[in-house]
Formats: sequence, C-alpha cells, structure tokens
Amino acid sequence: MPRLSRRFVLALPFALPAVLSVMLLKWVDTAAAQADVLSAEESDPNRLGWMQGFPPVSERVIGQPDSNYFSFPKMRWTVCHFRELLPTKQVSRGLGSPSPLTYALDDAINGVMFTPLDGSEPMTWQASLNENYTDGLLILHQGQVVYEYYAGCLDEAGQHGAMSVTKSMTGLLGEILVAEGALDEEALVGDILPELANSAFGNATVQQLLEMTTGLAYSEDYSDPNAEIWAYNAAASPLLKPEGYSGPRTYYEYLATVQPEGEHGQVFGYKTINTDALGWVIARTTGESVTSLLSSRIWQRIGAEQDGYFTVDSIGTPFAGGGLSAGLRDMARVGQLVLSEGVIDGERLFPAAAIERIRQGGDRQAFAAAGYRYLPGGSYRGMWWSLHNDHGAFAARGVHGQTIYIDPTAEMVIVRFASHPVAGNAANDPTSLPAYQAVAEYLLEKAP
Amino acid sequence: MPRLSRRFVLALPFALPAVLSVMLLKWVDTAAAQADVLSAEESDPNRLGWMQGFPPVSERVIGQPDSNYFSFPKMRWTVCHFRELLPTKQVSRGLGSPSPLTYALDDAINGVMFTPLDGSEPMTWQASLNENYTDGLLILHQGQVVYEYYAGCLDEAGQHGAMSVTKSMTGLLGEILVAEGALDEEALVGDILPELANSAFGNATVQQLLEMTTGLAYSEDYSDPNAEIWAYNAAASPLLKPEGYSGPRTYYEYLATVQPEGEHGQVFGYKTINTDALGWVIARTTGESVTSLLSSRIWQRIGAEQDGYFTVDSIGTPFAGGGLSAGLRDMARVGQLVLSEGVIDGERLFPAAAIERIRQGGDRQAFAAAGYRYLPGGSYRGMWWSLHNDHGAFAARGVHGQTIYIDPTAEMVIVRFASHPVAGNAANDPTSLPAYQAVAEYLLEKAP
Repeated sequence: MPRLSRRFVLALPFALPAVLSVMLLKWVDTAAAQADVLSAEESDPNRLGWMQGFPPVSERVIGQPDSNYFSFPKMRWTVCHFRELLPTKQVSRGLGSPSPLTYALDDAINGVMFTPLDGSEPMTWQASLNENYTDGLLILHQGQVVYEYYAGCLDEAGQHGAMSVTKSMTGLLGEILVAEGALDEEALVGDILPELANSAFGNATVQQLLEMTTGLAYSEDYSDPNAEIWAYNAAASPLLKPEGYSGPRTYYEYLATVQPEGEHGQVFGYKTINTDALGWVIARTTGESVTSLLSSRIWQRIGAEQDGYFTVDSIGTPFAGGGLSAGLRDMARVGQLVLSEGVIDGERLFPAAAIERIRQGGDRQAFAAAGYRYLPGGSYRGMWWSLHNDHGAFAARGVHGQTIYIDPTAEMVIVRFASHPVAGNAANDPTSLPAYQAVAEYLLEKAP
Repeated sequence: MPRLSRRFVLALPFALPAVLSVMLLKWVDTAAAQADVLSAEESDPNRLGWMQGFPPVSERVIGQPDSNYFSFPKMRWTVCHFRELLPTKQVSRGLGSPSPLTYALDDAINGVMFTPLDGSEPMTWQASLNENYTDGLLILHQGQVVYEYYAGCLDEAGQHGAMSVTKSMTGLLGEILVAEGALDEEALVGDILPELANSAFGNATVQQLLEMTTGLAYSEDYSDPNAEIWAYNAAASPLLKPEGYSGPRTYYEYLATVQPEGEHGQVFGYKTINTDALGWVIARTTGESVTSLLSSRIWQRIGAEQDGYFTVDSIGTPFAGGGLSAGLRDMARVGQLVLSEGVIDGERLFPAAAIERIRQGGDRQAFAAAGYRYLPGGSYRGMWWSLHNDHGAFAARGVHGQTIYIDPTAEMVIVRFASHPVAGNAANDPTSLPAYQAVAEYLLEKAP
C-alpha cells in the first residue's frame, strides 16, 4: 500500500471548524516536513493510549488549554471528544424511542475493487478504510444497513465531529425554509439582518449564501498569518481572549466586519462564514437557533438514537459552519431522509422541493472556476456538493474525510467519519469517491 | 408571604461545585447588603429574557468568560445550561428505548398544608414551589408519578445541575462496589491511590470518605480569601489558568496537596474533596471513570430518557463532587431504584446491601457535632443524608435546593431541581423538609 506521503496534499479547500483550526497550521508545517506519517493502525488513538488511566500519563493527556488537541495524531482522539474540550449546545433527539435501523449486512462489500483517482493500483473497499483513516462507516441500501464499521475513537454509542458536513445540515434547514416559503431566496441578507447591512453580506442574496457565490474578502489560507481566518477564529473561540484583545468576540460580531471582494454571484468560493451567516438568517427568520431547529425539524423526527451537539462561541452561538458532532447511525438516518426527499416511515417532514433544489445543484460554471481537481463538473447548492455524475450523486463533505454520500440511482447512502491526517478532502477523495461509485455499482447489480 | 430576606442564611454547608463557586462570594456580599431579593416570579429567567434573541441584547447575555454566570438571578438560567459554558463529559443512557414512567397524577397535592420549620405561618405545597425557587419537581408514589412540575429554565426535555446531589451518585457507586466486594471499606486510600499516600487522605479509610469523617485542612468558607476552596477552584477550572499560575492544574493534583487537620473518624465534615477522592478511588478500582461507570451501572439500566453529563477539569476528569446535570425524570428513576434497593422492572441491578448501608446511616454523634440546625439527629453515609425520622427518610442534597428525597415508609420519592438565591440548604429546608413530610403523610393516608 502506498504511504500517505505520496498523496500528501496540503490544500485546505474545506474550512476547518473555527475554534479548532488554530492548531492546524503548526501541524501542517510539521507534517509537511515529515517524510512518513503514521498509518491508521500506527496512529490508532487506543493504541497510542491517549487519555487512558486516572490520570493519564502526562505525555498522553489531551486537554485544555494548550495540548495542541487538533494536531495529528492527537486529533484522532479529539474528533470523538470535542465536548470534553469545549462548551457545547445540545441537538436533542427528544424523549421518545429511537426507530431501529433494519439490517441486511453484506460482507462481500469488503471485496469490492476500485481504482484510486490518483492512478495508483486498484484496491479493495476494505483496504480503503484504513487508507482513509476511517473511524466509522455505514452504508444504507434501499433503506437497510448493508455495512457498518467502527474503529479508532468511535463506536456505535459515540459521537464524532462532522466538521463541514455541519454546513449541509444548516443548508438543509435553509432549503426547507425556502421550499416552505418562510425564507425568500431572492431576499437580501442585509434586509433580513440589518446588523449585516454594511458588511459584504448586506447586498448578497440568500441564494448566494446557499451557493457560496458571495464576493467576500475572506481567506482561509492557514499559511498566511494575515488571512481573515485568524480573526474569525479569535472571534469564534469560547475561551478567554488574549490580554488586550479588542476584536470581535462572537460569530455575529465577526460577520459584521466582513468586507466585499469581487461581485456576488460570479464565482464559487468555499468560505465557512457563508454558513454562519445562513445560520443567523435562519435564527432570525424562525426565532430558533440552528441547534433548536435541527432538533425540532430533523433530530426529533428521524428516530435518532442519540443527541447531537454543536460547539459554541462565547455567547452560546452554535457554530453553524462546522460545529456538529453526532452518532454515525443518526447521520445515516439524515442521509436516508435526504435520499427519500423528506419522507421517513411514510411521513413527509418537509417539501420534496428542498432536496430537488439541492440535487439540481448550483452554478456549474462558477464552480468550475474554483478548480476542484477531483470534482470536475460539480456544483454546490444548499451547502451540498453535487457531483453531476451519471448516478446523480451528491454529498455533504467535511475536512479529514467526513461525508454523507448519496447515490439516488443506487438508492444508497454512505456515511463516513474519519480522522485523516490531511484536512483537505483532496487527500482522501482519490481512495473514497471511486470506492463509493464501485459499491454503488455493486449494489445496483445485486438489487432486486 | 414572608420576603426572602427574613430567612436569609449565609452559611454554606453544602459545597458549591468548584468551577462555579468563584462567582458566589461576590453575590453573597451583594445579596447580604440587599434588603429584598427578587422573588421566584420576578427572577424567572424567561421573564428576565436571558439569552433570548440572535444575538441577545448585551445586558442579557450570559456567556464566557466574564459574565458572572453563577450570580443570582443569572444563575436561574445557568443551572439548565452548564454545558454551554463549560466542557462536559457524557453519561450515556445507551441506545435503547426509554422505559416510560407510569402516571397517576393527583392535583390535590397542591393543597397539602405544612408548617415551615422557622415558625412562619402554615403554607400549601403549591406555595412552597415558588418559595423555594423550584425549577422542577416530581413525586413518585409506589413507583407512579403523582406530581410533576416545571418552571423557570427547565422543561421535561432539559437537564438541570444536580450540584451536590452528584455526590450521592458517586457515593452510590462506591456503596455498590463495597457491597459487591470490589472495594474494601477498611482499605486505606493511600494503598489504593499511592499518589495520595503523602496527603491527608493517605491514612484515611474508604469508609471515612463515604461518611466524610476525614480530618482535612480544608475550608469551604467563601468569605475567607485564604480558604482552601479557592486553590481547589483554581485547580478544577478547565479554562485558562491566570498568568504565572503554578498551583495544581487538575482534581488529581489538588487532592495530593491536601494536608491533615485533626483525626480521621471523629467528626463529620462536609468537604467536597472527599467525593473527588472517592471518584478517584472508584476509577482506579474499576478502570472506569465515574461518568462511564454511572452510565454502565445506572443510566443504561433504568430506562433513562436522556443522557446526563458532568463538568470536567482541564484533563477531562469528571467533577465527582458536584458536576452532574440530568433530566428531572431520570433523577426520579434513580430515586426509585434506590427506594427499591436496587431492583427495577423486576431486575436486580446491585445488592440490596448497598442501600441498606446508606439507610443505616453514618456516625450520628460525629454528625451532631457539625450542628445542622434543620437535620437534628441525622447522619451521613455513602454521600447520602439520613434524617433518622420516623419514616426512615434519607436524601441526596445539593446547594440551591436540589434534592432526591426518599421516604421508604410512604413509598415516596421526591426529586427537586431549584435555583434558590441562597446556596446553603438551611435557606430552603424550612419550607421543603416539612412539606415533604406532609406529602408523605398525605400519600400514606390515601395509599391502598
């Protein structure tokens, strides 16, 4: 199996959750300097013994405030334990009984072969799991669980950071509100949120937020110390600000400072702050926070087994752009709900139009200009990625390999939680996107 | 109704959870200087509008790090929202279906009369609810819910700080281990935890921890700036330590610094650090943290509706002495399990001896010396308070009015969550203890 170093890609096209990203730059520097990165087996958090014992030995402690908890390989523990490091807000599943998933497990999936996009040798599905530092993976086919896998820090009763898959939850809520007529996608953000009228968001439309085609002076280039991401991170942290800090102290305050760059509606620019602004639009429109609305509209309706939670800023604002942690099966339930366009157990939870709009996708030309090597012909809408391949697949995607991958043709949902050492998904796309396609084809072939 | 100021009692016999107590001293000073304190209605957190809106207006924000979040009346919001302010660790209910409680509601309880212990006029049960700043109250009689009430920040799907009721959960786990033979109550703490061999705990027995008859140089007198509670609080905080801080950074490190004062086994001294030491003993003995063991032994077995959670220190150690938040109904389920001496739905979860030992109580003479005005003849064992009254009642008790009150004679469990402006329960005992007794007598009379 090729070592990771061959595939090392430092691009960071997917934003790291703000409160966690401070540590990443150090890691990128360190990792880039290394010829070899620990394999999935070598970096297994149980094997490395993080946080085992009472107390853990000091060199195996991951805690606040200064343990670099999101550096690799520590982050392979941290992705399952954000709430132990940061204040969080609950996404309640409600108080009722969970709806059990039905099982039709198929071990043969382990043997499905695919060819990685980077031209390396064909590999099996099973081999892709460690190649991508997978912590959890579940496949639904025609609504039944055909594959379920846990490793590293995760088990069936755990929660894992969804990273930017969170955006797709926020975006789904936005599309539901648009489809229901509660939110006008032509409305200007500044009209909904007067606090943002004088920011770059003021004259952007809700649709431009949903498609991330706003023109914003905002760089997520972690290697540039002047990039706006640093001010954003400082504002988003719920912890004590440094002595003499006078910048924005919350997501709200930060968003109001964002300056324009270029025109809205021209180019796709993957910028987390669009989702935070959308989260604010949703809260102002509905009178509910994103956590509360995600609970009442989704989590309480899908028979979830576990509560989810969001990290928050210093005044309890949920991080709409990346703060969700949840159980693997519950993410699969959400994926199934999206695949079925809003219907679950025969009940319609929201208009099918919400999902139709996501599947239809965004402006493909605007997307092409952004140059995603492994998503040619793709687009972005409702904070979901459309592959526009012959299966009509679309996905929620988050750094370090998180995904909800939906293939309507194969009636398949794949949910993956992972802790790949490289943040940008360009590092794991070569051994995941074709693997998803291969399993879809396998399932299509065996489908009744 | 008499104003609170008449009953103002500043004694703090029940330890405030460490990470929250820093704010209390300021409040005590302020409140003592005030003639009038806001009533329950006046201080209702919804009425005051804490944290409403996106964003809340600045004078209604309760956040990190400097909003005095545990000062009254803000604390009436905070008691339901600790996780939004602090890192926490989950007490998982597991993934199954909750066991519904059965209901036989009896509105007549509202009219039950009692005479407060301070000699003021008789009042109704219903009037006691606001008198005690009650946020939630549930009464089980013969295993059925006869009364359920929510106010302020709490509803059936919320979680509320249990404060020192947490100690009784840790103590219950300790008694279970003793009853099962996994933990020897005659063993020396220093033999189980070599790290504590040179501290005051070193030559104390597990039994002395369970009964809080250790001789420790430890003051929880918040009005004394040199009291050990301040160093404890600093060690326990999961947040950034002040510049130049060189003291202990975790519960473990703090416990190792505790010095002896007097002899073990002579006098009852209510000191939270006994519970933290017991939590450590439990973790070392079982290889599981208190959160994990409370989940596997209790929360996953009682049909809980919700996860609970503990606040943690900077390395994720759960605050065994006061960090639990949980749902009202789940606390009632725990109370019922204790009343039934370990049996639930016909299944025995632990030996009855664990509860028999608690009911039997601790050294009454050692307790009498501590001078609890409203608990004459009482004792303390397994981190539960025995009233030794003619009903054999015993209770878990936490600052600001938290309780699980168990009356075996009346087959009654009362669970109260509250946010009384005064921490010490001497402020609410006069209008709660006789109210519990009156309801018990009412239920006995109507019992089949």
